[in-house]
Amino acid sequence: MSHINIESYFKDKLPFFNDLSESEVKDLISASYIQKYNKGELVHSKNSACTGIVVVLNGQLRSFMTSNSGKEITLFKLFERDICMLSSSCVYQDITYDINLEAEKDSSVIIIDSKFFKEISSNNFSIQNFFLTLTQDKLSQIMWVLEQVVFFSLDSRVANFLIDQYYLNDSININITHDTIANNLGSAREAISRMLKRFENDKIVELSRGSIKIIDIEKLKFLSSP
Amino acid sequence: MSHINIESYFKDKLPFFNDLSESEVKDLISASYIQKYNKGELVHSKNSACTGIVVVLNGQLRSFMTSNSGKEITLFKLFERDICMLSSSCVYQDITYDINLEAEKDSSVIIIDSKFFKEISSNNFSIQNFFLTLTQDKLSQIMWVLEQVVFFSLDSRVANFLIDQYYLNDSININITHDTIANNLGSAREAISRMLKRFENDKIVELSRGSIKIIDIEKLKFLSSP
Repeated sequence: MSHINIESYFKDKLPFFNDLSESEVKDLISASYIQKYNKGELVHSKNSACTGIVVVLNGQLRSFMTSNSGKEITLFKLFERDICMLSSSCVYQDITYDINLEAEKDSSVIIIDSKFFKEISSNNFSIQNFFLTLTQDKLSQIMWVLEQVVFFSLDSRVANFLIDQYYLNDSININITHDTIANNLGSAREAISRMLKRFENDKIVELSRGSIKIIDIEKLKFLSSP
Repeated sequence: MSHINIESYFKDKLPFFNDLSESEVKDLISASYIQKYNKGELVHSKNSACTGIVVVLNGQLRSFMTSNSGKEITLFKLFERDICMLSSSCVYQDITYDINLEAEKDSSVIIIDSKFFKEISSNNFSIQNFFLTLTQDKLSQIMWVLEQVVFFSLDSRVANFLIDQYYLNDSININITHDTIANNLGSAREAISRMLKRFENDKIVELSRGSIKIIDIEKLKFLSSP
């Protein structure tokens, strides 16, 4: 992705770009850099310093919350063109939570250092507006996750997860461990293994080491809608 | 509360008030009215039209999410001076979730009709900023709820809930049904009843019809911290 021109990419993707002065554009560009991450690499952890804004050029990233005991739950995923604000507390205001972000596939992102926003956001209406849209968007996604966790049974959530993987990778063969599914759904590996075993007995999937083969997508869809 | 002067109350409580023009203040006041709700009354349901902004004068309100099957979970509570944006989609942008709000005690609130914000928010920096703060605040609260649901065991969550009630009402006698606790925690009544029965066997609470008496607050506190 080294041929990417950050300025013209931003012009196209950042809604507040056209409201920046020439010198602000210069500051924005000098606060931005392209970064590559290998699959599995951590882009940001809840303990790291201000990362700033992440604009996804390609690949797939997963944002998640962790407990002290190491349990995880996925909050949202980011794909090409998606934008995410990390440690927004550094950028903007007091936020009392923090999230982790990891590359689920090899990924390239543009990172806009938080210092740019710190300087400019206090009086720029369109950046403020941009932050509001990002925050509302994340609020919607977190509400969706909460709804799933509280109101949907584990079988419907596992079914839903497998269907997502099927569409994401366009394949009935899903290379994933039970542990990874548990970490996505905020569940325990044992519970996921039991559920998948039940799916296998019901002839919905076939299980092998590190991989799940969907053999009845219709039954999965039926399970996923409560 | 009929002696409340809305204008001076707003001047004191709304961070964007001083940035309004004289005619905008006039519009704000004419879009605002005081409303009283009895305990148990619904202020806003996910199916109702744009309520706007709610500013709590006194009382206690509960915001919650419901499932199609009637299950509930509390998202946050509002007390005196708290401000909440309802159906922000009407006010501002596309939001893909919706919440319910009910009075948990007899309450008085000022409602600012959404039409005021519709007209003014598109170019007012401080209202934009106010919305951003409200949204970030709600995001933090929802993240907290999600964390509780996913990472904490039910006994610790019930213990935590009882401790909250104890401090809120300054009494070891809590008048509440098992059903209401279940609706607060996004759990089932049966699960709550079993847990309370266990607490009773462990001499932490005493149960009677419609009421729970805390007899060992230290043990409750121990349970609530995982």
